[in-house]
Amino acid sequence: MNYKYLLLHPNTRPFIDQARFGVEREGQRVDLTGALARTDHPEVFGDRAFHPYIQTDFSETQIELITPVTDSVEELFQYLAAIYDVASRSISDEEMIWPLSMPPALPTKDEEIMIAKLANFEDVLYRRYLAKEYGKRKQMVSGIHFNFEFGDDLLRSLFAQQTEFPDFTSFKTELYLKTARNFLHYRWLITYLYGASPLSEANYFVDKPGPSEPIRSIRNSSFGYTNHPNVKVSYSSMERYLSDIEQMVEEGKLSEEKEFYTPIRFRGGKRVADLTTTGVRYIELRNIDLNPYARLGINPEQVKFLQLFLTYMLWVEEEQEPDAWVKEGTNKNEVVSLEHPLKQTAFHEEGLKVLNGMKEMLIKLEQPTAIPLIEKMIEKMLQPAETLAGKIYQEAKEKSQHEFALNLGKKYDEEAHARPYQLAGFRDMELSTQLFLFDAIQKGVEVKVIDEADQFLRLQHQEHIEYVKNANMTSKDSYIVPLIMENKTVTKKILKEAGFRVPNGAEFTSMEEAIKAYPRFAKQAFVIKPKSTNYGLGITIFKDGASLEDYQAGLAIAFSEDASVLVEEFMPGTEYRFFVINGEVQAILLRVPANVVGDGVRTVEELVAEKNLDPLRGTNHRAPLELIQLGELEQLMLKEQGLTVSSVPAKDKIVYLRENSNISTGGDSIDVTDEFSEDYKQIAVSAVEALGAKISGIDLIIPDKEVDPEKNPTAYGIIEANFNPAMHMHVYPFAGKGRRLTMNVLQLLYPEIFEK
Amino acid sequence: MNYKYLLLHPNTRPFIDQARFGVEREGQRVDLTGALARTDHPEVFGDRAFHPYIQTDFSETQIELITPVTDSVEELFQYLAAIYDVASRSISDEEMIWPLSMPPALPTKDEEIMIAKLANFEDVLYRRYLAKEYGKRKQMVSGIHFNFEFGDDLLRSLFAQQTEFPDFTSFKTELYLKTARNFLHYRWLITYLYGASPLSEANYFVDKPGPSEPIRSIRNSSFGYTNHPNVKVSYSSMERYLSDIEQMVEEGKLSEEKEFYTPIRFRGGKRVADLTTTGVRYIELRNIDLNPYARLGINPEQVKFLQLFLTYMLWVEEEQEPDAWVKEGTNKNEVVSLEHPLKQTAFHEEGLKVLNGMKEMLIKLEQPTAIPLIEKMIEKMLQPAETLAGKIYQEAKEKSQHEFALNLGKKYDEEAHARPYQLAGFRDMELSTQLFLFDAIQKGVEVKVIDEADQFLRLQHQEHIEYVKNANMTSKDSYIVPLIMENKTVTKKILKEAGFRVPNGAEFTSMEEAIKAYPRFAKQAFVIKPKSTNYGLGITIFKDGASLEDYQAGLAIAFSEDASVLVEEFMPGTEYRFFVINGEVQAILLRVPANVVGDGVRTVEELVAEKNLDPLRGTNHRAPLELIQLGELEQLMLKEQGLTVSSVPAKDKIVYLRENSNISTGGDSIDVTDEFSEDYKQIAVSAVEALGAKISGIDLIIPDKEVDPEKNPTAYGIIEANFNPAMHMHVYPFAGKGRRLTMNVLQLLYPEIFEK
Repeated sequence: MNYKYLLLHPNTRPFIDQARFGVEREGQRVDLTGALARTDHPEVFGDRAFHPYIQTDFSETQIELITPVTDSVEELFQYLAAIYDVASRSISDEEMIWPLSMPPALPTKDEEIMIAKLANFEDVLYRRYLAKEYGKRKQMVSGIHFNFEFGDDLLRSLFAQQTEFPDFTSFKTELYLKTARNFLHYRWLITYLYGASPLSEANYFVDKPGPSEPIRSIRNSSFGYTNHPNVKVSYSSMERYLSDIEQMVEEGKLSEEKEFYTPIRFRGGKRVADLTTTGVRYIELRNIDLNPYARLGINPEQVKFLQLFLTYMLWVEEEQEPDAWVKEGTNKNEVVSLEHPLKQTAFHEEGLKVLNGMKEMLIKLEQPTAIPLIEKMIEKMLQPAETLAGKIYQEAKEKSQHEFALNLGKKYDEEAHARPYQLAGFRDMELSTQLFLFDAIQKGVEVKVIDEADQFLRLQHQEHIEYVKNANMTSKDSYIVPLIMENKTVTKKILKEAGFRVPNGAEFTSMEEAIKAYPRFAKQAFVIKPKSTNYGLGITIFKDGASLEDYQAGLAIAFSEDASVLVEEFMPGTEYRFFVINGEVQAILLRVPANVVGDGVRTVEELVAEKNLDPLRGTNHRAPLELIQLGELEQLMLKEQGLTVSSVPAKDKIVYLRENSNISTGGDSIDVTDEFSEDYKQIAVSAVEALGAKISGIDLIIPDKEVDPEKNPTAYGIIEANFNPAMHMHVYPFAGKGRRLTMNVLQLLYPEIFEK
Repeated sequence: MNYKYLLLHPNTRPFIDQARFGVEREGQRVDLTGALARTDHPEVFGDRAFHPYIQTDFSETQIELITPVTDSVEELFQYLAAIYDVASRSISDEEMIWPLSMPPALPTKDEEIMIAKLANFEDVLYRRYLAKEYGKRKQMVSGIHFNFEFGDDLLRSLFAQQTEFPDFTSFKTELYLKTARNFLHYRWLITYLYGASPLSEANYFVDKPGPSEPIRSIRNSSFGYTNHPNVKVSYSSMERYLSDIEQMVEEGKLSEEKEFYTPIRFRGGKRVADLTTTGVRYIELRNIDLNPYARLGINPEQVKFLQLFLTYMLWVEEEQEPDAWVKEGTNKNEVVSLEHPLKQTAFHEEGLKVLNGMKEMLIKLEQPTAIPLIEKMIEKMLQPAETLAGKIYQEAKEKSQHEFALNLGKKYDEEAHARPYQLAGFRDMELSTQLFLFDAIQKGVEVKVIDEADQFLRLQHQEHIEYVKNANMTSKDSYIVPLIMENKTVTKKILKEAGFRVPNGAEFTSMEEAIKAYPRFAKQAFVIKPKSTNYGLGITIFKDGASLEDYQAGLAIAFSEDASVLVEEFMPGTEYRFFVINGEVQAILLRVPANVVGDGVRTVEELVAEKNLDPLRGTNHRAPLELIQLGELEQLMLKEQGLTVSSVPAKDKIVYLRENSNISTGGDSIDVTDEFSEDYKQIAVSAVEALGAKISGIDLIIPDKEVDPEKNPTAYGIIEANFNPAMHMHVYPFAGKGRRLTMNVLQLLYPEIFEK
């Protein structure tokens, strides 16, 4: 089969860089001194039996981060970064993830290396077998498993250009077999470039002596994690490959098929034997060491290079019969693995030839943008000190590898904790959605962003699928609920009918009609507001009634915003946001206008600057609180109080910088959930129930929260109910206790996970 | 109690005309000759046991239309008109509602007058008793029962100005007692003005002789529907009133309390005796004859006058002790009832005094706008021929009362049938909502418009409440469903994942990114469209691929409409709208661009004019089809075909006047539900199910509906799913069978009603 011809076909061109990617990233949990953690895998992750993202590998301390299959490099790193963030923040504050493939100094006693405490006893037995067969220490090495699949359109286009294979499945299998053989032949180049396990730490080589360190990759050498030499499997055809593995198992050289530790695995169904029917669906590279310079253990450049490399493995001709070709590659890889990291490799010329071949391929395939990456790798051929192993070794010489790794580990851990309200990979999404994604990943609910700009998520746990938008719009609310809440008149009618106190008033669609009603409002406190616009636009408040002229003026303002205007009783008091989820008040929030508290020393400007240092404050809704501004409106507000930005407020004097209490204009969010009696909470719960909602932020005006609402009919008034209430301000308030509302929503959707 | 003083208080002024109204309107079902109908009450109304709007009174032919309690005269007539429309259109086409209080000529045999076939046997027994006690014929008279309640704010304001009554309930009872006594004293004036039963028809006075006709009101005279003279009840106090009624029942003068036929009833709880605890909540006037000049039996002017009259009854002082005062009124009413309709009444001066008193009251209460109405009534005092009885008698003299009534009845019936897709009273609402209101009223689901402009309805049957917007947005769909459908990318992803054929394509948020993908689309048929805007704006179709320049131009157009643009495979074929409700395809519609079919004789202009005569065509979405225009776009389209508005198309030649098939631009809607195999219907049902929806209009492109979609994967493609699909175009299509989708929605919401 001339794959080069197929790849060059013009119909294939549009899909040439189409591929799917997945990463499994192992890493040891260590304490802040770099010693192996002594704790169990955190309970917060729930049941390891199904967790799709965060697992344990051989040992209890060896955390494994698993991305879903993704359609682009960008998406791959979104998930990997997010899962890393979740793992980092979910393990104990006294722990972090070790950034090297080689484990830190291991305990001297074997029994102190804990085998993963899996629920399935067979899994434990298998690990016990491995410990006995290979030694526990070798199992403590970590790495990247890189899952790769050529794009479906690409494969189908290649398939369409050939006639040799009548069916797509066998065509694909043959294609991946060729790719794999070439990969096994040339993989020494990956070891050269990305080998990153030059040195072992204490108590690693205990049973047998190790190599003479430093080398390029302990993990990829025969001192790493390999089968016994009597395990031999041919890659000449799928039939041969499968029957060889079967024979190895029958002969007892492997306990089961998954013990076959090849640097590249074919993946089809659940078991190796399924490949007969499924064909190869994707391949798994297992020879990638953790790159300690990448927080996630691998970086996008590496993935891109691996994609190009695998494409080249398909492109370039094999030069010997299959088994010999693979064997030569295995031998070369052993040589390169054991080389000193700072020395030129023995296969320098061949390496250059491969890289130049890749360049040529890219030119022919009209993919010029990828060429600089190849050139960068050519540079590394010339500069062994620039390879990963070269760099690590040099740093280890200066201090120690342990210290080097410890510092990097701490740095990565701090990065993960710096903005706990955000989730790496998804920082362009709304904060509430970032928090919700965090929770879903932590609890092992499969989650896919199906429209990032629209905050649209798809969740799945076993057969149970849910869609979520803005982290609070779900299938649990009915369609009519947001329509009710969107319409202030309808909301009020329903609440009033159900016996709740809402502002009395009327809706008008003409000035004439509204003026006729003037006598009803003239002498009381009342508000004029547009029916549907928000953000406080067009609202006039008359706290002591109004003259007919003022009434008309207020109406004119409101009618300029909307064709329908409400005139309502004004309810004095403090406004609180009650957040109700599934029949429970989960949070109560007080919003206070932007302000500073004087200390008798500093100016308003200095106080604002200091308050803005709070890491919870940011801009553009990417933090739970916004930076306080000192713009025109704030300065006007100061002026009204006889102040300027240079005034020095007295100690404990609160200076307000805004009339409105919006968080978006620098307001403070204060959690007051525990300050309210059950009576008030019951009012909020019942009102939300009357509106038929499962999730709602309902705003109550309460003049005095100590007053018993059961006895006093004017103890509260309901202003409005919101169907898309912000959640992040409750999770990370300015003051008071944070309330993890996103987790409550997740529990509403997936009670089955939380019941365990 | 000086009610005049209370009414004059400035705090009361804003609420002076606040009141609530309800009407019960009886009417005999007759055939088109005016003979009493021989059919049963129509089954389409469902169960009379609970129907709140359409009932039967004494006889099976005596339909009773009942409005809910309303807050304004406008709202009262909205409901009354709607219920009348529903009743008129639901009874047999061979029947109509008799417009007079006096029944048409009755059968000679008593047994041919059918007692209402009610399910509750006690109700039947009571009617049998009435037939025996008063004779069946007297029970055949119809009228208006007018329920009236002073506004709550008005009553509370009056209550607040006085000190005599410590509790609101007893204050209200006293107030209504006074109103009632004055009403009973002065009601002869209502008989004079609105009495409308001057003549009886054949076989009415059979047992005993009647009065010497014509008179002002047979129904309000002693020849009408009154208790035996030995029934005597005092109105001096509520205690006395109740104990008198109790005594009448004990003495056997009444079979039960509801047999007490007073012209004004106090209403509180369900039974008269409940008044002790509930107090009077409202009053029911029972002395209003059907006004044959009003389609609904009563008009807004009458209701307004009754409101002013009742306010005056509260205002004006009683001049004798209660029982004497009432008795004098009863005597006067008998006199007036029996007067010749064209003669001045015996109480002419007193009538003028009352009306002038009302004028004076209005001036003092600063309600000048109502004065012309009083002056109109003064005019009628001077012109007896202008009273209802006067007018009817004059018309009856010219032809016969029978012919006069028959003509009016037919006219009203035709009016009710003229635009069957609309519902009188609610013509400002969307057609789908009008149809839905019709269905709810017909089936006896209580329905309230809670926001007319927003098409928001509240439904209730027993304890089961539902809210509905736009007749298709309900609690049965989940909130996430419209959000999914609103987002074309998300919709496609979900449908594709579920195995449905959707156009292949990609979403782009930048020109650069989109241009990069050019090779993928260059040589196939494809469409460029903005992600979220509708109405076909910004869409470019390339049926044979596109040059890079054209591709870029298409992108620029789409990006000018939206920040996200979709480039998708173009699917050729015909677009059909499948309307799915609750897992069933209820309708399939084909939309055809505005067109005319030539006859070889007439010009395009003439053909359009003729097609526009279809009563289904109207303007501004107030009809199921729009008028075909001959504007710029249509003329351009003609020009492209080498035609003008004056061209004469050949016989059977179809001339299209528009590219687009929207109904809103004159397109034809063609029901093709029965032309599709179950396979296609199953695709639509399953796709809607995959999206999680209960109600959706899903658009399928089908090149050839005879192709088996099970065998041919390109037999169909799904273009989009709509969460607010228009329904009226399916109910009243241009061609094909109408599908009552609104009834399907009602059934989805209230299966319990349809299960019976």
